Amino acid sequence: MNAAPETGYGQHVAIIGLGLIGGSIARGLRVAGGAASIVGCVATTEDAKRAVELGIVDEATTDLGKAVAGADLVVVAVPVGAMADVFADLARAMPAAAVITDVGSVKMAVITAAREQLGARIGRFVPGHPIAGTEHSGLEAGFGALYEDRRVILTPTPETDRDAFAAVEALWRALGARVTEMDAAHHDEVLAATSHLPHVLAFALVDTLARMAERTEIFEYAAGGFADFTRIASSDPALWSDIVSANRDAVLPVLDRYIGDLEALRGAIAGRDGAMLTSAFGRAKQARDRFASQYIQDQG
Amino acid sequence: MNAAPETGYGQHVAIIGLGLIGGSIARGLRVAGGAASIVGCVATTEDAKRAVELGIVDEATTDLGKAVAGADLVVVAVPVGAMADVFADLARAMPAAAVITDVGSVKMAVITAAREQLGARIGRFVPGHPIAGTEHSGLEAGFGALYEDRRVILTPTPETDRDAFAAVEALWRALGARVTEMDAAHHDEVLAATSHLPHVLAFALVDTLARMAERTEIFEYAAGGFADFTRIASSDPALWSDIVSANRDAVLPVLDRYIGDLEALRGAIAGRDGAMLTSAFGRAKQARDRFASQYIQDQG
Ligand SMILES: NC(=O)c1ccc[n+]([C@@H]2O[C@H](COP(=O)([O-])OP(=O)(O)OC[C@H]3O[C@@H](n4cnc5c(N)ncnc54)[C@H](OP(=O)(O)O)[C@@H]3O)[C@@H](O)[C@H]2O)c1
Ligand SMILES: NC(=O)c1ccc[n+]([C@@H]2O[C@H](COP(=O)([O-])OP(=O)(O)OC[C@H]3O[C@@H](n4cnc5c(N)ncnc54)[C@H](OP(=O)(O)O)[C@@H]3O)[C@@H](O)[C@H]2O)c1
Repeated sequence: MNAAPETGYGQHVAIIGLGLIGGSIARGLRVAGGAASIVGCVATTEDAKRAVELGIVDEATTDLGKAVAGADLVVVAVPVGAMADVFADLARAMPAAAVITDVGSVKMAVITAAREQLGARIGRFVPGHPIAGTEHSGLEAGFGALYEDRRVILTPTPETDRDAFAAVEALWRALGARVTEMDAAHHDEVLAATSHLPHVLAFALVDTLARMAERTEIFEYAAGGFADFTRIASSDPALWSDIVSANRDAVLPVLDRYIGDLEALRGAIAGRDGAMLTSAFGRAKQARDRFASQYIQDQG
Repeated sequence: MNAAPETGYGQHVAIIGLGLIGGSIARGLRVAGGAASIVGCVATTEDAKRAVELGIVDEATTDLGKAVAGADLVVVAVPVGAMADVFADLARAMPAAAVITDVGSVKMAVITAAREQLGARIGRFVPGHPIAGTEHSGLEAGFGALYEDRRVILTPTPETDRDAFAAVEALWRALGARVTEMDAAHHDEVLAATSHLPHVLAFALVDTLARMAERTEIFEYAAGGFADFTRIASSDPALWSDIVSANRDAVLPVLDRYIGDLEALRGAIAGRDGAMLTSAFGRAKQARDRFASQYIQDQG
């Protein structure tokens, strides 16, 4: 039995930005086979040429107006800080009925930018965030299976049209993702804790060690645990600077809480308070083991 | 061509503690095939029975004296904090010529304990630490290939006999490891940075999040980056409490340096200082990428 491809998201899809996230959407849509055309918008003519060569999209252009001219659905997959400018251009160039969604890792800042730039089209806008990624970025980094069995959080505004929401939901379903709805402010708090804070901590650790005199040797004697722990510190610096700045108000409280807890642990280490250390580490292990058994499919 | 198994470590090997580290040594020696007998010492008769059933050792006992009676080489693979007691028993029970080595993650504290307990036998003692492990522990956690292509750091004291050092080097070679020699205090500083600090940071993060009101939801929306970042927080709490306490004097300075750097980043986030964030994250990415390309064989 061959199920007909899911097409509730429209025939013509335009993707602004073909990096890890946008490029993976394009590749996944190809495989799913429901869209009549996929057009990509990128920054340079070289990337446009390369995107078509790689078979990611049917057409690629550096001209946003051209990219979205016939679009039913526009996916904005650029860094959060670049979205306001893209929205301003879209408000001028997009067909009136087209649905617009984004993939930004922060939702409140993107919604504010959308309200300011999209004007009367705000009802067509469905804010979204796929909970999937790797530490790689750029045109070559994407892959079609990135969203399979992953969660995508949609954070509609009070103005969001029902049919626009349904179209974006259909897009992610076609890519194999599981869609959840959430309040935007709450999304930003949850992601500050599980994603933005860990990135800051990993970047900070590697930077601290890299600036120590013995740095070469330090890395030479690091093992598998260190490799896993620091993987996310190989992520794109500009993208993550952008994310933590845009989500500052949610990142700071959880960062402060962490620094406070770390200082308490420091006290316990200084005082060789084994009972306190064992109980804090034990609570952590219990929570991590529960997380692993519930949410990680591919445990190594 | 079948190379004769490496046997420079002696015919009769006793391993005190058959957890992840000791059990992996036993399993690896079985495969290497150079020892005439491998005897394990464990805490309970159930574990002794199970260890023989699993085929990890030829014999297992809860009686340390029995375990080491005919040994050429004794490997102590218990938590760092338990080593002093084991050394005290060994000083009474071990044949005079037997070589003794340990696998503890901290070296200065173990050497101090060895000096206090081993007395005249201190020349037979070769402190060691395999840079290999997983977040699992116990009798079932070990595997014979754990040390293949891994580094083992030996930190001999001025008293260490040359032949004892050579025997322990031969043991690790037989298991496929690469042996390096290092000063014990320096070892403790390097490992504080690459292993002990990351464990503290990972335990602290998971504990911070687990104690937040929204904890269930937080973990539900965590992705692959979080799973990798927190893997080491599934390690044994008592073992790691023991390690950071034993290595307190090396852990505190690098932890303080880290907290200072994290507070500077906090200031940059609060001030939305994108340039500062991008440059710190960028230095980290550069160092992590270099580390990955030089030292990680099995990149995902
Ligand atoms: N990485 C993750 O794990 C992850 C996960 C979920 C969501 N997201 C979100 O997904 C979005 C894209 O991230 P990504 O990981 O796909 O990054 P990426 O691989 O670096 O791709 C970003 C894309 O945006 C373009 N771009 C960069 N700066 C721009 C600007 N100022 N104006 C217009 N276009 C610009 C890039 O073009 P050039 O290559 O020519 O610069 C590239 O096509 C971000 O909003 C991010 O928050 C990321
Ligand atoms: N885990 C790593 O990644 C790693 C890496 C390199 C070195 N090390 C070092 O290797 C050593 C062993 O660690 P492991 O990971 O193998 O831990 P493990 O799997 O928990 O094994 C520890 C072994 O020591 C025994 N033991 C525990 N407490 C004891 C005590 N008070 N007296 C005597 N025996 C005791 C345990 O017996 P029971 O099961 O009956 O308690 C078990 O056989 C530690 O010194 C550690 O620092 C660990």
